[in-house]
Amino acid sequence: MKKIASFLFAAAAVSLATPASAQFAKPEDAIKYRKNALFVMQQNFARLGAMAAGKASFDAKVAAESAAVAEFMSKLPWAAFGEGTDKGDTRAKPEIWKESVKFKEYADKMQSEMSKLAAASKTGNLDDIKTAVSATGGSCKTCHDAYRKD
Amino acid sequence: MKKIASFLFAAAAVSLATPASAQFAKPEDAIKYRKNALFVMQQNFARLGAMAAGKASFDAKVAAESAAVAEFMSKLPWAAFGEGTDKGDTRAKPEIWKESVKFKEYADKMQSEMSKLAAASKTGNLDDIKTAVSATGGSCKTCHDAYRKD
Repeated sequence: MKKIASFLFAAAAVSLATPASAQFAKPEDAIKYRKNALFVMQQNFARLGAMAAGKASFDAKVAAESAAVAEFMSKLPWAAFGEGTDKGDTRAKPEIWKESVKFKEYADKMQSEMSKLAAASKTGNLDDIKTAVSATGGSCKTCHDAYRKD
Repeated sequence: MKKIASFLFAAAAVSLATPASAQFAKPEDAIKYRKNALFVMQQNFARLGAMAAGKASFDAKVAAESAAVAEFMSKLPWAAFGEGTDKGDTRAKPEIWKESVKFKEYADKMQSEMSKLAAASKTGNLDDIKTAVSATGGSCKTCHDAYRKD
């Protein structure tokens, strides 16, 4: 259990083979948890995306705070991809549990890009934010293309 | 917009009268956001609750990390209670928007108790955690009783 929960401060310690029951009462809870965490992340990331695309006026304070929330949220979903959480109300492909090393690599990449976005957003430099938004969005897409059903 | 996003570091600055459109593309997004944030919080709080009730073995590391996530999450839902988000897939009572001072008081109380729980969990003292879990759970219940439909 100690190993499982270390995800927050050391994502590298999270094992995809962890039984969902160790953290969640039911597989449905785990599925809902990761979807809910990803939605909260996406909503904050979308604010940065809108600013980067010129669809919203740039507000450095909103950008920094939204990116900080998105960065925090980016660490949460992964512990909820335990064994037994592949069936149910989820678009997760079964390949996630067969290619856990690659899936973790993609998950780590996204967290890394999101951290860079948070750092860029702290500086308030819109060009840096645009670059980081693009890289982060790319890391989302790579994983969705491989591991999320249409 | 600056004032709106300050919720993260200064919850007191959040106005319930803020139009949801300022932060969320659609009222449905705001409703989903607050429900999703509260679910992620609840799942982490529930781990503390299970330990406090002796239904799960006490693990100081899991307790501290779960409480830290719950504390962070406790700050997020409130910006998503803007005007125009009272209708839809929500159990929020309309009184929330009529009694915004009282609602904010309850929301602040919960965040305050959750911060105390996070502090208690850092110490690793189970008795302190039990006290804080009880107070935090009470603050959830007070608000649900008043402002959430059955």
